[in-house]
Amino acid sequence: MATLPKVVGRVRDLRAAVAGYRAEGAKVALVPTMGALHEGHMTLAETAREIAQRTVVSIFVNPTQFAPHEDFSRYPRTLEADLTRLSEVGVDLVYAPTPTEMYPAGFASRIEVGGPSAGLETDFRPHFFGGVATVVGKLFIQCAPDFAMFGEKDYQQLKVVTRMSRDLDLGVEVVPVPTVREEDGLAMSSRNAYLDAEQRQIAPVIYTALSRAAEAIRGGAAPDAALATARGMIEALGLRVDYVAARNAETLAPLKEGAGEPVRLLAAAWLGETRLIDNIGV
Amino acid sequence: MATLPKVVGRVRDLRAAVAGYRAEGAKVALVPTMGALHEGHMTLAETAREIAQRTVVSIFVNPTQFAPHEDFSRYPRTLEADLTRLSEVGVDLVYAPTPTEMYPAGFASRIEVGGPSAGLETDFRPHFFGGVATVVGKLFIQCAPDFAMFGEKDYQQLKVVTRMSRDLDLGVEVVPVPTVREEDGLAMSSRNAYLDAEQRQIAPVIYTALSRAAEAIRGGAAPDAALATARGMIEALGLRVDYVAARNAETLAPLKEGAGEPVRLLAAAWLGETRLIDNIGV
Repeated sequence: MATLPKVVGRVRDLRAAVAGYRAEGAKVALVPTMGALHEGHMTLAETAREIAQRTVVSIFVNPTQFAPHEDFSRYPRTLEADLTRLSEVGVDLVYAPTPTEMYPAGFASRIEVGGPSAGLETDFRPHFFGGVATVVGKLFIQCAPDFAMFGEKDYQQLKVVTRMSRDLDLGVEVVPVPTVREEDGLAMSSRNAYLDAEQRQIAPVIYTALSRAAEAIRGGAAPDAALATARGMIEALGLRVDYVAARNAETLAPLKEGAGEPVRLLAAAWLGETRLIDNIGV
Repeated sequence: MATLPKVVGRVRDLRAAVAGYRAEGAKVALVPTMGALHEGHMTLAETAREIAQRTVVSIFVNPTQFAPHEDFSRYPRTLEADLTRLSEVGVDLVYAPTPTEMYPAGFASRIEVGGPSAGLETDFRPHFFGGVATVVGKLFIQCAPDFAMFGEKDYQQLKVVTRMSRDLDLGVEVVPVPTVREEDGLAMSSRNAYLDAEQRQIAPVIYTALSRAAEAIRGGAAPDAALATARGMIEALGLRVDYVAARNAETLAPLKEGAGEPVRLLAAAWLGETRLIDNIGV
């Protein structure tokens, strides 16, 4: 069994470790996570190891990106299993701060990103990206990595974080990593753990519906018609759809008629008490 | 005549210069300004030189902290005179970015600070501290100094920036520098240049009124009564008062009855078309 990675919980210890890596001349990659690690996270860590000599994984279930009615308290926390998994890919350091380390008494600041955060998730989770941008901004500032790995599974988040890193001159290159899927197409997600056996069978419908819509659009179908079909297919299995949308793949702005722009299809839907999201390129 | 300081306009040149200072083992102090430099700024620069081996002065009239109806376009711009003044105190570098360097196309991020930003200036300039926090946050990230000098003249700004630097782990120690005053007590400000001769004679009333109120409070007067007297004294000379207030000197929260807390008196008032602010400790 491989040795468990070193774990630190304080900013100063993180910075000391990273300063050591810098002194070696190493490039540093950060993989920000909320723990409950699955194959998707492992792919992020493996990609990090390919592009940088040193890899830091952060594990922090960030309270400020959950609304009061959301699943913060039941979000899966599996630190021991996470460390074991990470030992298998050989990361150099795990940074697992406490909420007090991230948000000490009197904390009052927030990073807000407009642009790609408009619509989609924001229509249903209005405080989400403010919470994400603030915690990721802090992680970037605390760790000062060269690269940060973000999964395309959370596509809007990827674009928001990329925008923030550029806007605030954080000097971190945000590296998109393709979504890892189960054999039946379901995007890997920590929230899949909430699904019961029957729900688990139904869940891939979001991916299937988006894939067919993408195929239809590539074949010349109007996006609106293809999206309506996809929505119907998802709802037919009993899911409650938040959105099924086509957006500019770079800016996430609504599509312009005949602009020939790169297109991304994105969806969010509730399966029972579990909210699933997914997206694919056209 | 002393040599004019080196001026750079690009983030990458700023970072290269600061990396050079670091390589020497120097501590670096940043003095963020909007130019139109006066004796108050010189005191900031001199204080910087006392505590750090290298001093960077930034000059940037930040459009995002002005509301559309405010004085952004007429704000005094005096770069040549500024550089001459700075050569006299011997700063190492002037960073004077263009608006496009600070806010490139697509820029969409904002740093918002709660806590000390509540009330006072925010009641009258609701977007002000968002603009200030964003530009100062960017300057801190771009320059990565050990220290940053802020005048107590803009006391609420000082507290907001201090809060932000701590909250976002920017690693910059914000150093408060006492307000520099004209002989008659008027706080030095670039906006004093807007005053005509008659207004200039009247302008010290804010400082005089705050000083008397502080004296009265030290002598046992109730803050509310002392502030009402101060407001009356300012209004009697024809100024339009935005606020005359007493706050906790650290948090800027409203005072609690009998808490024995440190007290700061703060005021803002219009003299014709010019808005003046000032504050003093009790």
